[in-house]
Amino acid sequence: MEHFELPPDVVIRRLPLYARSLRYLIDEGTLSVSSQELGERINVTAAQIRKDLSYFGEFGKQGIGYDVEKLLAHIERILGLHQEWPVVLVGVGHLGQAIARYEGFHSKGLRIVALFDSDPAKVGQEVAGLTIQQDTDITSVVREHDVRLAIVAVPATRAQDVTDLLVQAGVRGILNYAPIIVQVPEAVWVRYIDPVAVLHSMTYYLARNEVGLFTSTNGNGVH
Amino acid sequence: MEHFELPPDVVIRRLPLYARSLRYLIDEGTLSVSSQELGERINVTAAQIRKDLSYFGEFGKQGIGYDVEKLLAHIERILGLHQEWPVVLVGVGHLGQAIARYEGFHSKGLRIVALFDSDPAKVGQEVAGLTIQQDTDITSVVREHDVRLAIVAVPATRAQDVTDLLVQAGVRGILNYAPIIVQVPEAVWVRYIDPVAVLHSMTYYLARNEVGLFTSTNGNGVH
Repeated sequence: MEHFELPPDVVIRRLPLYARSLRYLIDEGTLSVSSQELGERINVTAAQIRKDLSYFGEFGKQGIGYDVEKLLAHIERILGLHQEWPVVLVGVGHLGQAIARYEGFHSKGLRIVALFDSDPAKVGQEVAGLTIQQDTDITSVVREHDVRLAIVAVPATRAQDVTDLLVQAGVRGILNYAPIIVQVPEAVWVRYIDPVAVLHSMTYYLARNEVGLFTSTNGNGVH
Repeated sequence: MEHFELPPDVVIRRLPLYARSLRYLIDEGTLSVSSQELGERINVTAAQIRKDLSYFGEFGKQGIGYDVEKLLAHIERILGLHQEWPVVLVGVGHLGQAIARYEGFHSKGLRIVALFDSDPAKVGQEVAGLTIQQDTDITSVVREHDVRLAIVAVPATRAQDVTDLLVQAGVRGILNYAPIIVQVPEAVWVRYIDPVAVLHSMTYYLARNEVGLFTSTNGNGVH
């Protein structure tokens, strides 16, 4: 087995963007791509791409570029996407319904297998081919399907309780849409989707721009 | 006018989380908070909070803690949220509808003022009290309302065209939900909401965890 330096999280976060660009290239019928061309698609430099990939071995040949399909397969294997990860979704309000219906969540390596809501009026309804189940069934379903990933789309006031339930049942990765930071044990990963906080950080720069204090670069690269 | 070192973007991204925690504290009737207590709510250290705030001047008194309302007002002013930013939303599919209905987007400093879609069947329909308008009206509406912020929730194939249109009309900050990186001029900010990429980066760690290679910390702090 080969040994490489452990890649920093920022590199791991870029890999899915490389993979997606490679999928678009395949859809366009492109067989080979240079690090330059791949970089332009996601606003990183060619040098950055080569450095990111170097954590995982040797890819591509000098002057020839990367074989698109091979590089994609390799990145998907690094990300663990050669296997399928069952995902449960807790909270089926407007947002949860949009999530359940979004085809992106049924993409490579992911499959939403169960929906849960605490509202008895919603339980039994069907969304995107799945029947909404009661929150109280989370533990048994997570254990039965050996689920490690969950999406939480409940209100802020319920997010910690739902998180505790999921973690106790065996979930180790949570995508949290609730506008609150939740506490989890060390072996559990939580990442946040927080569009309002993102907008509220952009207004900082816009407000300065308006008064002529716009000094930093726009940081639109993928950092 | 006072002069401070320019705060890095990572600090600006944490400010909205501080503000939100302070709003929750106000809802709970709390008048004063220590950096320790505030830090525990968003998984950062007390030292980090003090350092973050030091970019903007002096807050709180040693041993007394922060006045919750004053600190919130100050952070909101830093973020430009003492004024109201009109926001346009382009793309009113399942996701766009959930966005339009989400009360978070009508929170402090933000107000969605117009919805656009390219589908003639959707134009004229009402969502969350707003009538969906044609994409071709984007330019006039953005100019009329002096709009600087937009949310893009169109498919990947349309995201660049819509972005170009928004930027030409005067938009300077874009929250992009389309799963593609868009190109913009230097004076425009784009931030991405990309839950599938986030899930695809979590599977990396879960896959390693399964085979006992889980070595790094979970990074659940707000970085």
